[in-house]
This record gives sequence, C-alpha cells and structure tokens, in this order.
Amino acid sequence: MQAILREHIEKIVPLTDDEFTFVLSHFTAKSYKKRESLIREGESVKYAYFVVSGLLKLVYNDTSGREHIVSFAMEDWWESDFQAYYTQTKASMSLQCLEDTEVFCLSFEDYRKLCSGLQKMEHFFLEKAIGGHIGSQQRILSFITANAKERYEQLLKRYPSLFQRVPKALLASYLGVSRETLSRLGRS
Amino acid sequence: MQAILREHIEKIVPLTDDEFTFVLSHFTAKSYKKRESLIREGESVKYAYFVVSGLLKLVYNDTSGREHIVSFAMEDWWESDFQAYYTQTKASMSLQCLEDTEVFCLSFEDYRKLCSGLQKMEHFFLEKAIGGHIGSQQRILSFITANAKERYEQLLKRYPSLFQRVPKALLASYLGVSRETLSRLGRS
Repeated sequence: MQAILREHIEKIVPLTDDEFTFVLSHFTAKSYKKRESLIREGESVKYAYFVVSGLLKLVYNDTSGREHIVSFAMEDWWESDFQAYYTQTKASMSLQCLEDTEVFCLSFEDYRKLCSGLQKMEHFFLEKAIGGHIGSQQRILSFITANAKERYEQLLKRYPSLFQRVPKALLASYLGVSRETLSRLGRS
Repeated sequence: MQAILREHIEKIVPLTDDEFTFVLSHFTAKSYKKRESLIREGESVKYAYFVVSGLLKLVYNDTSGREHIVSFAMEDWWESDFQAYYTQTKASMSLQCLEDTEVFCLSFEDYRKLCSGLQKMEHFFLEKAIGGHIGSQQRILSFITANAKERYEQLLKRYPSLFQRVPKALLASYLGVSRETLSRLGRS
C-alpha cells in the first residue's frame, strides 16, 4: 500500500526516503467492507481519503430521501466531503463503499502539519486541488451544455471501468437521468 | 488598486511590505471596456485575472453557436479558463466584460515563480483552489438536486447584486433555464 501512495505523490513531487517516511507518518491505513460508510451525513468529517483499492460513492440525500450520486472514487483518487473537511463542519454528504476498499486516511490536522512541514507537499496538494477544480468545472460545463447521451459518452470514454463496476441505477443517478434512459443509451 | 489586491491576499496570508512588493512585481494592472474580451476561444490563455472592479462572464459556445454562461466574476474574484491556463493549452471558453472592468493579470510563468519564491503565496493559491473546488462541487450538487426555482433562490441569496447588474437572459443561461422561466421565478 505504501508504494502506491508514494508513486501517487511522486507523479507530482519527487521525495527522498526520509521525506516519504515523514509524509507517511501523517497517514493511517484502513480497510472497509462493501456497504460500510466512511462519512455519514450530519457527522464530523475527520479525514480525506486516498483510495488504494476499491470503489466509493459520494452521495447526497435530498429532503425527500432520494439519493443523488455526487461522485465516484476509485484507485488513485482522493475523496471526502471537502467542504466539511476543509471548513471542519458537519457532513452534508455520505461516503460509502461499493466494493471492499483500502484507503489512506489523512486528518485535517495532519494535512495542515504536512503542508507546513514540507513545502513540496503544499505544492502537491495545490496541484491536486487545481485538478479537482478543473474536473468540477468540466462537469459543470457538461451539465450546462451536454445532453444525457453526450454525458453518457463522456463518462464511458473517461472511465470505461465504471461501467463494469457500478450498478446501472447509480450510473443513472450520477448522470442525472432515469435508469430507463440509461438503458436506452447503453443499447444505442 | 494595489491596496485591494493586498487586502485580498492578506485575508489568507499576512505579508510584510517587502513581501507585497515582491508579490506585486508579478502582476500587471489592466483596464477593459464593457464588451471587450480578455480570453477568446481557441487562443492561448496567458493570464489568470483578479477582478478589482467590474464584472466578467465566462462563456462556452456550443457547436450550434449557442452561448452558455459557465460563471460570472466580480470584485475580489479570480477568473480564467483554468483548464487552459494550468495546462497551457488553448481556451475552450471566452471571458468578456459585462461592465468596464479593472483587473490584475498573472501569467502562468509568474504564478509559478511566485509560488516557488514565497511559500506563503503557494499556501494562498492552495486556499483559493480549494475554495474554487468547493464552490464548483456545490454548484454540481445544485444541478443534481435542485430544481430551477431552488437554483434561482440560492443564487439570489448568495449574490444579490448579480440580479441588479446582469441582464436577465444571461442569468437564465447561468441557471440553465429559459428566460420565460426566470421571469416567472422572479415574480413569485
């Protein structure tokens, strides 16, 4: 697991062995079973998670109890209710396992210590935050400009493995279409 | 203008006079007239812009030539085609003035120099990128979960001044509703 985290960070900033030992001391490794929750709506958000293996869904339950998929997170991906994490407020979303999942957990306090203790890591998180911001802007753009068919095709092109790993009903929720529409798109 | 930039940065990181002089040396002040373009689709994106006064629209033109509003930017706001800026590729969007606008321009090269020259500024940009990421996630959430009326009310609550300053047709485009729907919402 450690090698995967190191490789992930070193795509952006190279680290010496001593630096990686320092970095690693801020993380905790954890394993979760399918259907377990990492974040529950209304509770504190202690950690941001780096996914080593497995698959998570970030969901928002509206006032009528309907579940909406905000995002999926798989290997090499960071996930949290970032608003609650960075502002240290209660979760407005839930994070749950769609598969057995291994993660590295980083508490907000350790995140801050890591940034102030090693400038390279502040640079690393800046690059990740920019990536997240760009990704979100692209998704907004697809909501504004693309129809359901185009959103389906964009997702299939970017993350083909999701179509094998995620139940159709969840994919439909992520795309903001009905399950019937998704089935029709999948056949065309 | 300089005092506004300094105040903006010092909301996140305090600066000495010497540090601010160093920071300021990376920026160029510019003024644009209403309807002028700062970024044109298909061209290089040289700068990220900090808005000192005025109002900008970031727009995406789809293949049928229809204009979609991705975001507005007013005082104290940063704007660019961030994907193109950070990856140094051509713009997929355009940035235009809705009012006479004063900005500070930061080239990508100067952004990088600023981050490596002063760790405080890397921290500043990390905080801004996180803010941008959170803001985008909230907007995605509103697209998934909220209907047009709720999106209208969220926007009115967060940015009441936009309703005085932005033509109705552009607000409708931002919200992803027809102008008729927006008029109906405005009356209710």
